[in-house]
Amino acid sequence: MALDRLKSVAQHVTGTLPPPHPFDPLSNAEIEAAVQIIRQQYGQLHYNAITLKEPLKKEMLRWLENPSIPRPVRIADVVVVAPGGKVIEGWVDLKAGKVTKWLSLEGVQPLNRLPWRIYRLLSMFAGKIQRSSNNVRLVVFQQKICTKSIVIALMYYRPHMDDSQYSFPLDFCPIFDAAKQEIIHIDIPEIRRPVNKAKPNNYHVDAIEKEGGYRTDIKPINITQPEGVSFKVEGRVIDWQNWKVHVGFNYKEGIVLNNITYNDKGTERPIFYRLSLAEMVVPYGNPEHPHQRKHAFDLGEYGGGYMTNSLSLGCDCKGAIHYMDAAFVNKAGDSTTIKNAICIHEEDAGILFKHTDFRDDSVVVTRGHGTVQLEIKLTGILNTYAMNPGEDTKGWGTEVYPGVNAHNHQHLFCLRIDPNIDGPNNTVFQVDATQGAGEVGSKENPFGNAFYAKRTKYSTVKEATSDYNGATSRTWDMCNTNKLNPHSHKPVSYKLVSREVPGLLPKEGFLVWKRAGFARHAVHVTKYDDEQLYPAGRHVPQTSGEPSRGIPEWIADAILSA
Amino acid sequence: MALDRLKSVAQHVTGTLPPPHPFDPLSNAEIEAAVQIIRQQYGQLHYNAITLKEPLKKEMLRWLENPSIPRPVRIADVVVVAPGGKVIEGWVDLKAGKVTKWLSLEGVQPLNRLPWRIYRLLSMFAGKIQRSSNNVRLVVFQQKICTKSIVIALMYYRPHMDDSQYSFPLDFCPIFDAAKQEIIHIDIPEIRRPVNKAKPNNYHVDAIEKEGGYRTDIKPINITQPEGVSFKVEGRVIDWQNWKVHVGFNYKEGIVLNNITYNDKGTERPIFYRLSLAEMVVPYGNPEHPHQRKHAFDLGEYGGGYMTNSLSLGCDCKGAIHYMDAAFVNKAGDSTTIKNAICIHEEDAGILFKHTDFRDDSVVVTRGHGTVQLEIKLTGILNTYAMNPGEDTKGWGTEVYPGVNAHNHQHLFCLRIDPNIDGPNNTVFQVDATQGAGEVGSKENPFGNAFYAKRTKYSTVKEATSDYNGATSRTWDMCNTNKLNPHSHKPVSYKLVSREVPGLLPKEGFLVWKRAGFARHAVHVTKYDDEQLYPAGRHVPQTSGEPSRGIPEWIADAILSA
Ligand SMILES: [Co+2]
Ligand SMILES: [Co+2]
Repeated sequence: MALDRLKSVAQHVTGTLPPPHPFDPLSNAEIEAAVQIIRQQYGQLHYNAITLKEPLKKEMLRWLENPSIPRPVRIADVVVVAPGGKVIEGWVDLKAGKVTKWLSLEGVQPLNRLPWRIYRLLSMFAGKIQRSSNNVRLVVFQQKICTKSIVIALMYYRPHMDDSQYSFPLDFCPIFDAAKQEIIHIDIPEIRRPVNKAKPNNYHVDAIEKEGGYRTDIKPINITQPEGVSFKVEGRVIDWQNWKVHVGFNYKEGIVLNNITYNDKGTERPIFYRLSLAEMVVPYGNPEHPHQRKHAFDLGEYGGGYMTNSLSLGCDCKGAIHYMDAAFVNKAGDSTTIKNAICIHEEDAGILFKHTDFRDDSVVVTRGHGTVQLEIKLTGILNTYAMNPGEDTKGWGTEVYPGVNAHNHQHLFCLRIDPNIDGPNNTVFQVDATQGAGEVGSKENPFGNAFYAKRTKYSTVKEATSDYNGATSRTWDMCNTNKLNPHSHKPVSYKLVSREVPGLLPKEGFLVWKRAGFARHAVHVTKYDDEQLYPAGRHVPQTSGEPSRGIPEWIADAILSA
Repeated sequence: MALDRLKSVAQHVTGTLPPPHPFDPLSNAEIEAAVQIIRQQYGQLHYNAITLKEPLKKEMLRWLENPSIPRPVRIADVVVVAPGGKVIEGWVDLKAGKVTKWLSLEGVQPLNRLPWRIYRLLSMFAGKIQRSSNNVRLVVFQQKICTKSIVIALMYYRPHMDDSQYSFPLDFCPIFDAAKQEIIHIDIPEIRRPVNKAKPNNYHVDAIEKEGGYRTDIKPINITQPEGVSFKVEGRVIDWQNWKVHVGFNYKEGIVLNNITYNDKGTERPIFYRLSLAEMVVPYGNPEHPHQRKHAFDLGEYGGGYMTNSLSLGCDCKGAIHYMDAAFVNKAGDSTTIKNAICIHEEDAGILFKHTDFRDDSVVVTRGHGTVQLEIKLTGILNTYAMNPGEDTKGWGTEVYPGVNAHNHQHLFCLRIDPNIDGPNNTVFQVDATQGAGEVGSKENPFGNAFYAKRTKYSTVKEATSDYNGATSRTWDMCNTNKLNPHSHKPVSYKLVSREVPGLLPKEGFLVWKRAGFARHAVHVTKYDDEQLYPAGRHVPQTSGEPSRGIPEWIADAILSA
């Protein structure tokens, strides 16, 4: 099987099969080819990630301009853990069939591949508590990272193996040393909180059936496209209503959109070079030890791609769907596939405009939509902690079920936007709805009604380090100042509208503030750099925030324009 | 026909037909019955509006609690213009068949019923300019009100009678005295701006066909419910997924939702007594005379109900639709009907939650949604003014087409919420995401990570006069403090999330600021009063803002709780 795949890579290379688009994620065959090449040279390793090393932008723009020149070479970007725990970053040139970088990193922990890590820790912990209980399989935990190689485990009890453990938080937290691979301490609070006796509260099918079953009064809504869909997909490029976009995917960010263009009456105009959700942090707001440690980087520590699961028609998505799979490497170096990781479909977005002529009541209605928009749904379960009957949460949490305290938390997302508005030389302006100068009665504003969209050009990254201002309905325009709209004579622009942007609530100097530098402000603008993909750094687990990785490094002393 | 309807009212009254729900809008029959009764007593009048006088809340809550007691009496609320222009407000008791109020108002102008008013003014204006042009039918205008009984006309030219006039704004503004019914002045700017010679820019079907026709690459999306819809409509009460809501309609607010309840495992829990979009103002930001005058109250001056037009399946709405009509009175006193004024349908709202068990990859996905949400689409055409080639808009507008200046403007909406959270005695709290007290290292906040939802009770309307704060993600909780959630022990609540709330940009003291008192702040809270329905006053046209009507009157010296 692996050999078949290696053969298919060879076919790509020799031109027997159509070559992948340079933005395409590595195929299963390419992943296994990379592993073969590494194995020959370095033997047995634990694979943390193998993903496409995206082509240099300069090189890629050249190829997009003229696809008849040779394509950028396919390179696999590899993170492995060597025996002894050393983390290594490597590149494999898939055309040359050789390793072109092999870098051993100091003081770095790779991203957590949750399931196997949980089991490993669980079995160790089981050994520790087996003496007092033979019900160990019913105790589960989630890990949270605090400082270097130390892991705090949040413990839960399950009355039955299929009960939701989040209704039964336990009050103690084992501390695990990942370097020594052992539990070094158990945090036991001064105030003990025995596990609650509440009735299990489950969402799974069996439990719902037992409580009277699912509702039967809801009729199906069918969404069909009997003549087919209006988009075409060639390889991973979607062509839809004059828009084109390449859909990539990696283990960390999940979906990556590249080379978004709009065909403006025959002219293909570039709009974005790359869009992705690049990082996310969830700080918790309970100051009581050890809960201050609780925070998570869902992308940097766990991987948005790795956390993806298969989508199924009628449950996750409705309508006429085009699916794309995702390919990863597992710990042993085999390639794995998540079927239907991405769903592409059309939705009716309602009316675009409706105009009525009052003379004859004639009406023109159009439907449609033209916005690139990210919608995130938080459909998880609350992270919970134990509480005693009648205990005061002191405002740091909410009792969501008897004996269950859901601590306050934020979700802060970091969208990485690489605009390409009619070309790569773009400028960002801050736009604020602003009253005109002069009070009522003044010469320049005699009636006081003057207002305008105040545009502030960002010339330095310091100026561009900005927050949302609700009072001015602040937006950000990404502009190509070398190309003016023929009517308005203003630069062609794409506007960033991002209004759900609370500040980072933990204070300056605290661990989360140091580690999640990207979350200190709503918007940062930096000059393009091929290496700057990860707003909280590439290897996020166990970082101390000293120095703060990612955006704080990039903005330290940079300017945007000469 | 009118007599038939009078008979049907009589049947309602005598019990031959099922009586209307007390919240139901007046039927065509009831409107005509009211006109008959008024005519007998007062003769010929111009009818501005006939609408339901909603029952007193106290009385209505009694009936909702126990529908076996007699229903509140049906009363028609009438606005007429008597010969000579006097505006009269009246009530007609439809059961007793008599006028119970007939109040002649001073210094008040009724709402504009746009089409006939435009034609009347147009013909007058035509007389004035006929000497210089016999192309008068191609000149159209929109009216804007500035001060008492003076109307400013915004002029446009149409090269062809079906061209969009907004591409051809004229630079002069006739001033019309509505009391004298004549044009008293024409505002001619110092800088003349001849009508532009640009190519007409049209959206109507003929124009699109001439430019190559509609796109043919878009495939239909069909939304069907082969087993029918999941909601039931009895009269005007929708029953859907445990929710119930009565759908009313009037000429001013359009849709009114009454008595929204949720059936919580057998207990019908009230949530809202009444919800409506009660007012809206559009100030313009160009300080140059006479454009400071330009602003509109789309509801108070024109009527959200009157501006409604018929909806048609496939154009305005897709899916399995239940339509409701709207009944009005015309100027002569006949009842009119807008067919399909309201569309009720189900939409797929995507995933509510998805949980995956990583042990066996089993998945539970649910779909659904539980939010009462107002979505407004601004699908109009920009109000435009003339500009010379190369003229600088000075930031007060944007050249959207050659010679066409679209002036800056805001749209400020006023949603009236009458909560009834488990009963009518509710309290409003402001909720701000807030950092815990104490710096990093302090005893109460040793790590600096503490944060919480700060709740501030509004005790006076002054405290409750509040603005959105983006930095704290401010929301507002409407609570019943006498009923606690069994788990959280917090008052049962419904949260107002309203984040697109820019301030009113025209300055204090200016006409718009005075007239649109409701728009000075994002949220106001007042004690319930049956008379307080109109945030900018009931009769908005020609108001001077001295005193400011509506909310500024209600909040003058009120308290919320003792
Ligand atoms: Co959460
Ligand atoms: Co507008």
